[in-house]
Amino acid sequence: MPHIASLCANSHRLYTMADHKWTGSVKSLKGVILDMCGVLYDSGEGGGVPISGSVEAVKRLKESDLQLRFCTNETQATREKFVAKLQRMGFELSVSEVFSPAPAAVSILKERGLKPHLLVHDDLVPEFDSVDKMNPNCVVIGDAADKFSYKNLNDAFQVLIGMEKPVLFSLGRGRYYKETDGLKLDVGVYMKALETWQLTTCS
Amino acid sequence: MPHIASLCANSHRLYTMADHKWTGSVKSLKGVILDMCGVLYDSGEGGGVPISGSVEAVKRLKESDLQLRFCTNETQATREKFVAKLQRMGFELSVSEVFSPAPAAVSILKERGLKPHLLVHDDLVPEFDSVDKMNPNCVVIGDAADKFSYKNLNDAFQVLIGMEKPVLFSLGRGRYYKETDGLKLDVGVYMKALETWQLTTCS
Repeated sequence: MPHIASLCANSHRLYTMADHKWTGSVKSLKGVILDMCGVLYDSGEGGGVPISGSVEAVKRLKESDLQLRFCTNETQATREKFVAKLQRMGFELSVSEVFSPAPAAVSILKERGLKPHLLVHDDLVPEFDSVDKMNPNCVVIGDAADKFSYKNLNDAFQVLIGMEKPVLFSLGRGRYYKETDGLKLDVGVYMKALETWQLTTCS
Repeated sequence: MPHIASLCANSHRLYTMADHKWTGSVKSLKGVILDMCGVLYDSGEGGGVPISGSVEAVKRLKESDLQLRFCTNETQATREKFVAKLQRMGFELSVSEVFSPAPAAVSILKERGLKPHLLVHDDLVPEFDSVDKMNPNCVVIGDAADKFSYKNLNDAFQVLIGMEKPVLFSLGRGRYYKETDGLKLDVGVYMKALETWQLTTCS
């Protein structure tokens, strides 16, 4: 009984759905959750380009009686910046319709009374404005890109090793992704690096 | 039948051995292999300081009929630089008596006809002078310290992912160590990071 469809394929399938040529089983759908990068647009220089047909597909889904939400593992920018980029590409969407890792993490941090040491991209920091970061008792890492320096990783490590029960939140588990100038290591490998020191004591 | 003793404890035990007050079982020893950092000296500002008694202990071992060799996992400098530092501290030792990871790696690289992409400390690079590094077909990482940048890790990753059968040599597996300004992540966690992308394809 699939009431919600989560799409992470490509805009061709998306367009077909939006075209209202649905089979009986698809008619039972109440809503659609769309992945974004690689589904709605391809990342690249200047922020990327929409995938052919995707802007129109989103428009048709919005005009339908389906609930529509967007889900992304993007952690290099706030939702506001991210949505503004997609709007410039022609997509109809608003911040409240987009689900991304940082606001979910903020919600958990507040729920548990945790104060994070952040190792994230500069453009993501504003997502954590409402969170107390004095005397941190956990570490949050995102796709920090150039901020993944030896010094910053040591700083995060020193915060973790100073805790009785180290708590590390990773905003993703991806291992690598493609940019216009080649493949880049993603947050998942840095998460693994920061997990590794715990396997034994100093060796 | 221990014919060689490998010591990685501290200079007190070392001094006791050198003092010739050995039990019967210890008398069967033919040689001694000494760890260095944390056994002969403590690392720190200006290169570190000898541990009390260790200079004299090495002197006595040299005067004995025991074979004496030194073994280290040091990968931030060539053996020449490393030995010069120890000599300045007062230790009697020569380059040929010291076994460290980089020369062992060079030996394996030549034996297998491998050409490395290096992600190592600048001061270690001369150890690899005799190795062809054009069109690399493997990656060698050491304790690169500040050279563990986002860019350099991506470069090493791109070399690895471009190979049909990726080959990664790590000059150590240590997870962290202490310096005067705090704990530092060691090469082992970066090794783990570079291993991680292989667990699945792009995620």
